[in-house]
Amino acid sequence: MLKRLLGVAVLATLPFGAGAQSIDDLKNDANTPDNVLTLGMGWDQKRYSPLDQINAKNVKRLVPVWNYSLGDNRGQESQPIIHEGRMYVTTHDATHAIDVRTGRNIWVQKFEYPPETPRIVCCGIVNRGAAILDGLLYRVTLDGFVVALKTEDGSEVWRSQAASIEEGQSMTLAPLVTPSAVITGISGGEYGIRGYIDGWDLKTGKHLWRRFTVAGPGEPGHETWPGDTWKHGGGPTWITGSYDPDLNLVYWGTGNGGPWNAEFRKGDNLYIASTLAMRPETGEIVWHYQYSPNDPYDYDEVGENILTDMTIDGKNRKVMIHVARNGFLYVLDRTNGELLAANQYVKHLNWADGIDMKTGRPIDSELTKKMRAGEEIVVWPGAFGGKNWFPASYSPKTGLVYTNTLEIGMGYKAIEPKLVKGTFYVGIDLSKALFHMKQDEPHAYLRALDPMTGEAKWEHPLEIANWGGTMVTGGDLVFAGTQTGEFQAFDANTGEMVWQFQTGSGIIGQPVTYTIDGTQYVTIASGIGGAYRNYVPLLGGVEGVGSPETVAKLTSVQPGGSFWTFALLPE
Amino acid sequence: MLKRLLGVAVLATLPFGAGAQSIDDLKNDANTPDNVLTLGMGWDQKRYSPLDQINAKNVKRLVPVWNYSLGDNRGQESQPIIHEGRMYVTTHDATHAIDVRTGRNIWVQKFEYPPETPRIVCCGIVNRGAAILDGLLYRVTLDGFVVALKTEDGSEVWRSQAASIEEGQSMTLAPLVTPSAVITGISGGEYGIRGYIDGWDLKTGKHLWRRFTVAGPGEPGHETWPGDTWKHGGGPTWITGSYDPDLNLVYWGTGNGGPWNAEFRKGDNLYIASTLAMRPETGEIVWHYQYSPNDPYDYDEVGENILTDMTIDGKNRKVMIHVARNGFLYVLDRTNGELLAANQYVKHLNWADGIDMKTGRPIDSELTKKMRAGEEIVVWPGAFGGKNWFPASYSPKTGLVYTNTLEIGMGYKAIEPKLVKGTFYVGIDLSKALFHMKQDEPHAYLRALDPMTGEAKWEHPLEIANWGGTMVTGGDLVFAGTQTGEFQAFDANTGEMVWQFQTGSGIIGQPVTYTIDGTQYVTIASGIGGAYRNYVPLLGGVEGVGSPETVAKLTSVQPGGSFWTFALLPE
Repeated sequence: MLKRLLGVAVLATLPFGAGAQSIDDLKNDANTPDNVLTLGMGWDQKRYSPLDQINAKNVKRLVPVWNYSLGDNRGQESQPIIHEGRMYVTTHDATHAIDVRTGRNIWVQKFEYPPETPRIVCCGIVNRGAAILDGLLYRVTLDGFVVALKTEDGSEVWRSQAASIEEGQSMTLAPLVTPSAVITGISGGEYGIRGYIDGWDLKTGKHLWRRFTVAGPGEPGHETWPGDTWKHGGGPTWITGSYDPDLNLVYWGTGNGGPWNAEFRKGDNLYIASTLAMRPETGEIVWHYQYSPNDPYDYDEVGENILTDMTIDGKNRKVMIHVARNGFLYVLDRTNGELLAANQYVKHLNWADGIDMKTGRPIDSELTKKMRAGEEIVVWPGAFGGKNWFPASYSPKTGLVYTNTLEIGMGYKAIEPKLVKGTFYVGIDLSKALFHMKQDEPHAYLRALDPMTGEAKWEHPLEIANWGGTMVTGGDLVFAGTQTGEFQAFDANTGEMVWQFQTGSGIIGQPVTYTIDGTQYVTIASGIGGAYRNYVPLLGGVEGVGSPETVAKLTSVQPGGSFWTFALLPE
Repeated sequence: MLKRLLGVAVLATLPFGAGAQSIDDLKNDANTPDNVLTLGMGWDQKRYSPLDQINAKNVKRLVPVWNYSLGDNRGQESQPIIHEGRMYVTTHDATHAIDVRTGRNIWVQKFEYPPETPRIVCCGIVNRGAAILDGLLYRVTLDGFVVALKTEDGSEVWRSQAASIEEGQSMTLAPLVTPSAVITGISGGEYGIRGYIDGWDLKTGKHLWRRFTVAGPGEPGHETWPGDTWKHGGGPTWITGSYDPDLNLVYWGTGNGGPWNAEFRKGDNLYIASTLAMRPETGEIVWHYQYSPNDPYDYDEVGENILTDMTIDGKNRKVMIHVARNGFLYVLDRTNGELLAANQYVKHLNWADGIDMKTGRPIDSELTKKMRAGEEIVVWPGAFGGKNWFPASYSPKTGLVYTNTLEIGMGYKAIEPKLVKGTFYVGIDLSKALFHMKQDEPHAYLRALDPMTGEAKWEHPLEIANWGGTMVTGGDLVFAGTQTGEFQAFDANTGEMVWQFQTGSGIIGQPVTYTIDGTQYVTIASGIGGAYRNYVPLLGGVEGVGSPETVAKLTSVQPGGSFWTFALLPE
């Protein structure tokens, strides 16, 4: 009965080396493509693998080798972790260990959370993945706990409370493991929270530090918050930071100000809509860069910060690339936060007239001035941003950033905010906050962007916006998935779609690639859900929000979470 | 963007020819492998396709071309219907139309049923498929309705009540469309029902006739029921019959007597545990064959009746093959019910000493005599039978019957039955009704059986019993699926497993094959559930019911319903 089928050896599970992964393993993750030990396929979050077994020439032989059902109808945004032939995946209420060779379950550990949680959690009942180190798997729960499980059997080792749904806080991100702490952030920017980032002891879960992203009394930047506004100033931290072990700096993004109505909190509002460069031992902010001071537009800048080296003006620079929700693509010197480039990467942007390269500040457009004066406007990008949570990838081979992008505007009229626990605290007229799409052009693209200019080397128009991450490989393939379920590969140089496969439900997950026994595999979650699916159909009948046919195509996608693993069919 | 990928042309949906399928199309279904219009891939229910594009030589290139998520975590036992590039599938609470070329949803129609229904329905919350004719799709609902939907858009045309969950009746089967009526049966043999089969007007849903399977006062066979026992005599009819249009006879199976304790209803108990040959216009019983008169062992004989022609003793005979739950394999002359062969096909059978070929009756073993005298016994096969609901297939090329089979005994001690609505009415001591498996040999096999002798030409041992149907093709491949999710192909002549693919959840469905645009496809449902999964783990700790490891392997399979379609990867 033991046969080699579809390139997968049907073998008994190999002996399990629990605890073998070390900090050095994590540090080398991006260079050791036989495992995927970190979110982003490396602390630098390039989501690039040098593997080139699968390439544009042979990708037509890329076929599923197994599927693993999660028994879960919520959205699946989780990136799997791969270690020694095991895959660890998370859902909103469970953690699964899977034998990569067979696709069979090794263990599953389920969580319960209070039944009112989904009503309170904004924008998608999801979990985005785990972290591992030394025999422990770290994840968060929707209702605000950081949990460590044994990778061997899923048993719980420690559990620490980081957030509280009663306070409008929740957690969906993958933790970041650094040598000195496991670091987590929180969600809830629309629920009147004051954001923070926490450090936890790796072995015991003891709380090591908390860094608030809204400067309180006595903290640097507090002067940017009038009166008591800092108490509910927003600045959520709901996506995982990247880490440079040589500089010993963590790069963590912060979200929108609370309420959205920025006239209610005049000032820069440090540190909303920023990247914070922090020490993992203490949470000390070494430098910060604020993309949108006083941000009125829900331009969370929590999205990934990609670390790479680039030659700029003949000099090698350690940079950080950030595809900002505000519609600009930034390159910073990651040693000190110096702005190196900031260029518009979306077609439609009207809130700013550009970024002042001297000050690093955006220049308010006339439209934004009108908005500040109380006028109703349609802002581009809208609250979904030019890019939302879904991570971009960067290929050192092509020098390009690959990312799903949006061209969706939003109606905006500031009103007086009202703070009511468990409800949206935004201070805009939600009846006018309608999404706008251009009827004669696509509302979303997969784009290959030059980080220094924001220009698209190629762009692939999308019928329905993608809501998942991308990955790029040494085989010059870019992988991305659609909300209607197609997992697709593109030529990294030309943008030609060279492969696709229908995965059953919609894709909003994060692809990874790795080798087992010398064979390259690609894995992606399928399972519709998430913010776009949850909000856009509500507005399906409204003029300017895509055709009813397009919305119907999205709503007809059935839920059903599963993980897919692909490999080349042997010739 | 339009590419031919994985053999599937990504095209706009072709114009839909609603209503093109006719009674002649159904009649010719087995010979027109470009569609699958009937349950069993033909009214004769051979589950044989002459297609041979996919065969043992090239099956290693058989790969998924798409998956379709059902958003449903119940068991998936449904056979799809394929017509003009559309696939129609059913779940316990929804009907889906899928574009076969893309795997995308065309429409989905959901049902609601009373929340107490799953508690009352015995043995698996499932639906086994639809029937179609002339632009209508027929299906049943768990809570007892027969429904006709437009195939074009899923809108409901008529709905007739056939059964009532308050009476312990439910419905899970695919209807049978004949030229004169759509025919349905009911489930509930353990809930004190009196079984029946109904005929409904194809266009209007008007009730045409009801044939009770337990003879009431004034009906032939009533004398086989003492006193009032007929009122709750069982005889459920929960699997679809086959149909011979030339003889104009429907062959429909009936289930166990109620209660199981047969001493409580001394007599043959017509027509439990039988095949009924009926007129579709009226439900008139033209002939019947009772496999287990007075059946005490829950030997439902609802399973498929395969119609074929065979040469026996030099004469061409129109036969009906029935792989009986009681452990014998029967061949009958289907023109008149004459018994032609009845041979044991399981290794372990102790309830009878054989079948008397003159009378067609089983010969009670000493063990059964002891049981009738009130002694506690272990009977083989147990209540799951030598084969359960899951349909067998028959290849005219090899002359063999391919079926999943069981070697599972059961403790049995008759006690006085008590009739309480909504609870099991069986009259045996359930605390002693434990499953038994031989610890030193497999408890289940996929077998290739000679219908005239019951001998296995080959058998494939199973680690965990299969619970789904089989299919055999002109390419001499037998397809079957495991409850741990592997969809597998076997050489029809040798039994060698030549291919497998892990589908994510467990397989308990019914495979089909067909062509679209000249390419052969294979489709199967994945989605664990059903009676075995529901009952066996309850007894997992009990001695003699398989190892705890085996039970753990079964219970670790995650739910998650989806349909899979496979084709050869172009070379």
